[in-house]
Amino acid sequence: MGTGTLRQENAALLVLAAISLALITILSVWKLKRFKYRLVNETGGAMFYGILLGVAVKYLRFDGASSMENHVCTCPGLNSTPHLVMVNISSEAHCYRHVGKMNPKSSLDSTSHMETFDLDVLFNVFLPPIIFYGAYTLDQRRFIANLGSVLTFAFFGTLISCFCIGVCIYGVTRLMVLLGQAADGDYSFVDCLLFGAITSATDPVSILGLLSDLRVDLDLHTLLFGESVLNDAVAIVLTRAITTYDGARPAFDPSAFLYSIGSFLGILLGSFCMGFIFTVITALLTKLTRLRESPLLETSVVLLLSWSSFLSAKASGLSGIVAVLFCGLSQARYTVLNLSAEGRSRTKQLFEVFSFLGEIFIYSCMGYILLTFPHHVFKALFISGAFLSIFISRACHIYPLSLLLNLGRTKKISCSFQHFMAFAGLRGAVAFSLAVRDTTTEAKQTILTTTLLLAGFTIWVLGAAADPLLHSLDIRMGEDSEEDSKDFSSEVAMRGPDTARGLWHNLDHKYLKPMLTHCGPPLTELFPRWCGAFARIFSPSQIQEDEEEFCEIEPHTPPLNLDKTEHPPTPDDDHSGSEHQDDLLEGDLGLGTGPVNTTEPSVDFV
Amino acid sequence: MGTGTLRQENAALLVLAAISLALITILSVWKLKRFKYRLVNETGGAMFYGILLGVAVKYLRFDGASSMENHVCTCPGLNSTPHLVMVNISSEAHCYRHVGKMNPKSSLDSTSHMETFDLDVLFNVFLPPIIFYGAYTLDQRRFIANLGSVLTFAFFGTLISCFCIGVCIYGVTRLMVLLGQAADGDYSFVDCLLFGAITSATDPVSILGLLSDLRVDLDLHTLLFGESVLNDAVAIVLTRAITTYDGARPAFDPSAFLYSIGSFLGILLGSFCMGFIFTVITALLTKLTRLRESPLLETSVVLLLSWSSFLSAKASGLSGIVAVLFCGLSQARYTVLNLSAEGRSRTKQLFEVFSFLGEIFIYSCMGYILLTFPHHVFKALFISGAFLSIFISRACHIYPLSLLLNLGRTKKISCSFQHFMAFAGLRGAVAFSLAVRDTTTEAKQTILTTTLLLAGFTIWVLGAAADPLLHSLDIRMGEDSEEDSKDFSSEVAMRGPDTARGLWHNLDHKYLKPMLTHCGPPLTELFPRWCGAFARIFSPSQIQEDEEEFCEIEPHTPPLNLDKTEHPPTPDDDHSGSEHQDDLLEGDLGLGTGPVNTTEPSVDFV
Repeated sequence: MGTGTLRQENAALLVLAAISLALITILSVWKLKRFKYRLVNETGGAMFYGILLGVAVKYLRFDGASSMENHVCTCPGLNSTPHLVMVNISSEAHCYRHVGKMNPKSSLDSTSHMETFDLDVLFNVFLPPIIFYGAYTLDQRRFIANLGSVLTFAFFGTLISCFCIGVCIYGVTRLMVLLGQAADGDYSFVDCLLFGAITSATDPVSILGLLSDLRVDLDLHTLLFGESVLNDAVAIVLTRAITTYDGARPAFDPSAFLYSIGSFLGILLGSFCMGFIFTVITALLTKLTRLRESPLLETSVVLLLSWSSFLSAKASGLSGIVAVLFCGLSQARYTVLNLSAEGRSRTKQLFEVFSFLGEIFIYSCMGYILLTFPHHVFKALFISGAFLSIFISRACHIYPLSLLLNLGRTKKISCSFQHFMAFAGLRGAVAFSLAVRDTTTEAKQTILTTTLLLAGFTIWVLGAAADPLLHSLDIRMGEDSEEDSKDFSSEVAMRGPDTARGLWHNLDHKYLKPMLTHCGPPLTELFPRWCGAFARIFSPSQIQEDEEEFCEIEPHTPPLNLDKTEHPPTPDDDHSGSEHQDDLLEGDLGLGTGPVNTTEPSVDFV
Repeated sequence: MGTGTLRQENAALLVLAAISLALITILSVWKLKRFKYRLVNETGGAMFYGILLGVAVKYLRFDGASSMENHVCTCPGLNSTPHLVMVNISSEAHCYRHVGKMNPKSSLDSTSHMETFDLDVLFNVFLPPIIFYGAYTLDQRRFIANLGSVLTFAFFGTLISCFCIGVCIYGVTRLMVLLGQAADGDYSFVDCLLFGAITSATDPVSILGLLSDLRVDLDLHTLLFGESVLNDAVAIVLTRAITTYDGARPAFDPSAFLYSIGSFLGILLGSFCMGFIFTVITALLTKLTRLRESPLLETSVVLLLSWSSFLSAKASGLSGIVAVLFCGLSQARYTVLNLSAEGRSRTKQLFEVFSFLGEIFIYSCMGYILLTFPHHVFKALFISGAFLSIFISRACHIYPLSLLLNLGRTKKISCSFQHFMAFAGLRGAVAFSLAVRDTTTEAKQTILTTTLLLAGFTIWVLGAAADPLLHSLDIRMGEDSEEDSKDFSSEVAMRGPDTARGLWHNLDHKYLKPMLTHCGPPLTELFPRWCGAFARIFSPSQIQEDEEEFCEIEPHTPPLNLDKTEHPPTPDDDHSGSEHQDDLLEGDLGLGTGPVNTTEPSVDFV
């Protein structure tokens, strides 16, 4: 009991320290923002205070004396006196993963027991809601209007960026070998590619913080935020594929290469399906039952099922974060339409709090680890190469891809947009979570150190420079999203109903929406006759009778409202036709051809 | 990496199982409730499904083969290769506490690795929000009007109940020794008192579920719910004090007895202060800053600081649950007045979701452990004695204390109320958490088994019998709380402003409210001159100017609204004088003399 209580008290103290840090961050950043000092947001503040805590722990070295006593270790799941005990004092950790524990040559210093910021908790409890909330609050209509562009940037952009950074860094490491700063085998090309994949994940959290504080053009907002959300998925899966390839191989191994490509596609698709399956379950549950009568139950069900998508993906060896990302995207498209107005605002507010707190905890942990991780490897050349390469890689994918995309887009991505997109590649939580996962070799320790420095630099320096840059690029700011969304729908309404209906539109409008929600044409019309029974199950008559009136109200509160934090959705907006126009937009395969300049050419675009 | 991933996948599967259980519970109980079948609520349902899962695990014995492989054990905090490794295969567990692990003689059966429902997580993450939410949603005005009665029932009632059950059970164990069913030293008197303290904790969760489904008389509601919330605190601290006394002593030890009385009072007062300190911090933060502008920040700050009260109490060796209970009570009295309407509804909804899910997880865990705990000790005599004694003890404290209280109360506690209160002693989460804390001896295993059975019996049988009993006792049901609260205030308004102002009223109205909120008389008037600077700090002029208009609106939304789940507080209720009348009521030292029958005698009371 005694040691257990002592451990519990220590754990309580640790969590208290984290909470105090979070409170200080919240209050000071909020105070700064009130003075219209927009250069710092929560992520930067949290990281700063994490560093301060790190300094305190590192240099004050408090309670170093008691750090020896609490190394009591139990085996969860062991229920009896075993016949044979094998003690394996190897370098691998299983129950908990702690930064810096991997290296057996380290000395037991005073920081060791403060390092129990349990990263598993951080990444399994706090990261999923952040990613989910990011995906859930994407402006659905604009996202789908720009789907093609966003997907291009996220998929091909990340691949280009990863390869580009990999090549640059490989060049730098060769230079390091030439200059005698590293041995020949220290950094393999695969290590460099791994670094490329890790630092290709731009961070939705800090970008969202930046964009919502600055209120930029909504299309730019969608492109940037959508890209940063989706490229996390690609970067995560890419990192896993590169790890699968195994960096120890000296020569190129075609079979391992093909296998890792297969694993890349398999995990990406598998996680996507996992996320979507849980959305289907949630949507059907909320559609076919009268759960809508109790907002508390709706919220609980959405929360539990969305979290299940993460856990199921983890349990089946897929990527949990990618699954929860796609789950968030599809929940916002389908399930939301089945929820009551109160259930909708409650769900959003719940995830908002989770995401907000998770963000603060993760970023302060980043700052803390930047200072206290005992195996930092600072290689000046590697770091400067990395700083250079993230800009090069960003330029290498934004400009050429924009050029290509502009061939297909009616509303072009202007040059100033491209400049800003190339600039706004902030790195954050996902890159950190990927880099910290494995710190066994010196190359990987260099990667962690450099990633943390990159994150700090991009969040503080680029984040602070964004405001002046937007001014100098003359991108319209401070615009009202409601007003704009009305413009948007009226622009599209002019285009007539039957232009460019694509595959996605067919699937979404004709099958998914009617099946998963009460909107769209009745299922019995859509399905061939022999599917009649199937169609009837998904549109039960006794519910549908009084649902219809509900469905008619629904389009008045477009999912766009999800984006606004302070006000719950108001059903009195005048968007009577928005649902219909929404579907029209989707017909363009998302290349951004929606809000055309044919009706009124916008002066804002160069 | 491999074993780590495997462990993570197993953990994910386990959490998935818990989530599925929760979903099934939510959906089926909700479905039953929709058919007006009010006999089952979430707690009973969750326990039932927990038992089903237990049956499945116990009798299907699935994946028993793999249970051996994952017993990998790491020592968190150990950062280097130690010089000396001492492996202590004792019966005590430190990092994690698992039910059934304490007994070294058990065989490694297939259920062992499913038993990693981590009880620490359950009691440190899910229990505090339940208790907090219970205290937070107490009807403040009625609670304070009945404060004296509630405190009497909670404090003296629990002491009487503990002693009464202890004596009854001691008699039973003597009988068991006589009949040869137990050895002489198996059950000491202290063990019996411990059982008394554990089973004296009536459960706010299931009582709240019961009362809100049945909509009973509001005074009865307040008495029952208030008692069940507060007696948890007394029972928890009493259990600790009895544990401190140490049951191994054969003879009565006066110094240990005095020490445990001291520890009882010390922990109770200490935890109370800890909870109150964090309320003061929260209230001052929300009063002195303009946090009200962002409901997200308000909610986060209230959440973090309330959780801090739990953690700080734990870290300083006090009772976290008691601290969070008092924190919830005082947050609802002071901090709530400083929050914006949206912040208020958000905070409540957040805790509601936490509490709802926590409740389901804890009760299904209870059901699961009832079936799978490998060291159950079923003693028929002990169990029947326990069933008898909880009724006797309940009768022994409700009737005499009501008699005493009725001497001082203007609005008497009627006989039918007394009968229902004696009947409605449901046992649940807190009793379970106390019983499961220590299962090292056979006596304590008997206590756990019996407590689980008691909880199951009271929740299912008494819960289901409550509806018919209320009918037969003719206690008014289905009444509208708003209407009633208006009656209530108008009744009191007749009584003139200066009767029976007590100590509490003075403290609360004259000092705490003005200091912690924007309501009540200005501080500068209240404090003597030499405190002028102090008073000015707590009523900063630049804020107070436009706060005044806010404070005038506040009394229109009385904290009573907290009790209503579905609707956010509406500021258009016509309670213009309620704040004032509220304070009048508090002057009666809470003996329930408030709503006097002088104006219109109520026919409902015998």
